[in-house]
Amino acid sequence: MTADLTRPVLPLRPELAGLEPYGAPQLDVPYLLNVNENPYAPSPQVIASIADAVTRAAAGLNRYPDRDFPALRADLAAYLLAESGVAVAPEQVWAANGSNEIMLHVLQAFGGPGRTALSFAPTYSMYPEYARDTSTAWVAGRREDDFSLDAGVARAAIAEHHPSVVLLASPNNPTGTALARETVLAVLDAAAQVPGGCVVVVDEAYGEFRRRGTPSALELLADHPHLAVSRTMSKAFGLAGARVGYLATAPAFVDALRVVRLPYHLSAVTQAVARAALAHAPELMAQVGALRDERDALVEWLRAHGLQVADSDANFVLFGTFTDRRAVWQGLLDRGVLIREVGPQGWLRVSVGTPQETAAFKDALVEVAGL
Amino acid sequence: MTADLTRPVLPLRPELAGLEPYGAPQLDVPYLLNVNENPYAPSPQVIASIADAVTRAAAGLNRYPDRDFPALRADLAAYLLAESGVAVAPEQVWAANGSNEIMLHVLQAFGGPGRTALSFAPTYSMYPEYARDTSTAWVAGRREDDFSLDAGVARAAIAEHHPSVVLLASPNNPTGTALARETVLAVLDAAAQVPGGCVVVVDEAYGEFRRRGTPSALELLADHPHLAVSRTMSKAFGLAGARVGYLATAPAFVDALRVVRLPYHLSAVTQAVARAALAHAPELMAQVGALRDERDALVEWLRAHGLQVADSDANFVLFGTFTDRRAVWQGLLDRGVLIREVGPQGWLRVSVGTPQETAAFKDALVEVAGL
Repeated sequence: MTADLTRPVLPLRPELAGLEPYGAPQLDVPYLLNVNENPYAPSPQVIASIADAVTRAAAGLNRYPDRDFPALRADLAAYLLAESGVAVAPEQVWAANGSNEIMLHVLQAFGGPGRTALSFAPTYSMYPEYARDTSTAWVAGRREDDFSLDAGVARAAIAEHHPSVVLLASPNNPTGTALARETVLAVLDAAAQVPGGCVVVVDEAYGEFRRRGTPSALELLADHPHLAVSRTMSKAFGLAGARVGYLATAPAFVDALRVVRLPYHLSAVTQAVARAALAHAPELMAQVGALRDERDALVEWLRAHGLQVADSDANFVLFGTFTDRRAVWQGLLDRGVLIREVGPQGWLRVSVGTPQETAAFKDALVEVAGL
Repeated sequence: MTADLTRPVLPLRPELAGLEPYGAPQLDVPYLLNVNENPYAPSPQVIASIADAVTRAAAGLNRYPDRDFPALRADLAAYLLAESGVAVAPEQVWAANGSNEIMLHVLQAFGGPGRTALSFAPTYSMYPEYARDTSTAWVAGRREDDFSLDAGVARAAIAEHHPSVVLLASPNNPTGTALARETVLAVLDAAAQVPGGCVVVVDEAYGEFRRRGTPSALELLADHPHLAVSRTMSKAFGLAGARVGYLATAPAFVDALRVVRLPYHLSAVTQAVARAALAHAPELMAQVGALRDERDALVEWLRAHGLQVADSDANFVLFGTFTDRRAVWQGLLDRGVLIREVGPQGWLRVSVGTPQETAAFKDALVEVAGL
């Protein structure tokens, strides 16, 4: 076939050429344990509250939404106090369409051309995409063999690369590893010494699933105005489909994000849905407790069957290692169980589902891996 | 007060320093004619459809939304066929949280550092912000005194600046001016000659309000793969609060946007709300007809009272000129009528409201400007 040279070319940025859109396969199989969704659908009570809130919001949809959504920010602040015991003011809270839009705002305000974002691999595979989409240079330091982050390694990387943004997932995805408080403090201290400034985002998308005794970086906010802690309603609240991410930080940090956000980025419907779900926080947090127990039992079961398992403070478990992890992933899929082929070579990640889903996963794994 | 030198500084990008977040004042007054909203709230029938659709979507909100939303894209394609008589395939349609996110995707894919976006002033004041947020250089060419765009001027600007993205609002905001077909064709031809390629986005946010005989650039899509036509559900559909913008273009253009979009950017709730409203397109389009008539009558009334008025194909009217437009704006506000102080010096912009709102505006203007 001859190219039609008279057709105008599209000026796609060279760094995007040949790339596929990000995303795990969206397959229709019985057991979806691949993207760390909450397996529990909203209850009839939550659905009724959402429907009621959206019906009321719909009556005014011809008007633009409130650009600063103070009511939602107040509700999120109240929730953080209840969940973590840390008081933040509504002015310290910011929200967007998923925590990925939160990260975009952070990198638009503090990253960009001529600047560097730093994280420590293996970690969330979207981070380098956020950097790429904002023309921010991307550097990945290393985690230890047990997926923890060594404070000295982190300090050295920050001193070497002078990032303007450090992204730390805690619990980390895809490993489930939470950061020690001392490590976060070391990073904050090193960041404060970067000429020109450096912000630190602790991504606690899975924060509510942390084990008893695991700290939240929210506790460090008061003393560190260059720290932001991001959360999401996708996981603990079981609202992945509603796209609500948020962060807590210093008011000046929020003000910077307000300059780069697209006006009216958070729809009146999204604001209504989020507030309706937040009103049900106590019952949703009870589900989180059940998932934590299910997670701990799954970790034990996998270890009892001779597998390596990373300590998990999240609603997923990284396990392995397999000589041919692709074959194990495919064997599970053949049995109707979709998990994720992600993370270091030889490892696989499974989301914590309902007891029934976990049982299906276990049965399939015993067959496929010959446990 | 002494600055606390031990506090870490935030590495805000220098081009953002001192900026205020974009947006018109959100004031609580009786007559809101400042941001070109549709004055008609969703009908009880539309509200019921939205509530029903969201209730069904809510049952699955623990799962991520479909990243590629083919059902919504098919509905939007069917709507464009009905509205403009132009057939596009669902693969030619892309949607996002408002047309401002559409523009962000376009500039992330085709603009960015080392590249230039071009438009012609006076035009939509968000365009330079989209450029800034994507580190794209911004050049504003000029429109004629009657706010039309001269084809020769446009060709020369493109040949001089070699933009990778040209943004053309038609009808233009804040002037209401639609582009002649010949002008758009001249721009497309000049863009096709830019080394490295250049895409042209015709922003038809107000396209449904065009007068009979005014063409839509949708008609040019088939022959111009470097053209995209953006639309929104904020205006004609009266869904500003739902945040749904979209564009139609060549499939390869959409594929480029899919690489830079954040995964799951369009929530399951937003998809459901948009589809519910699209099912009511015929009744909503009848309202658009009423607003067009109201607009034409308002233009005549203003001219009959000795004012200059720009020809309008939109749901707003730019009128003037006033020696002290700020005083007129404030005088109207003092009488409960909020309009917009925007556009070239001496002009003011008023949105087309209900007959009652228009009457309130006229009464106030007669008093304030002594017509």
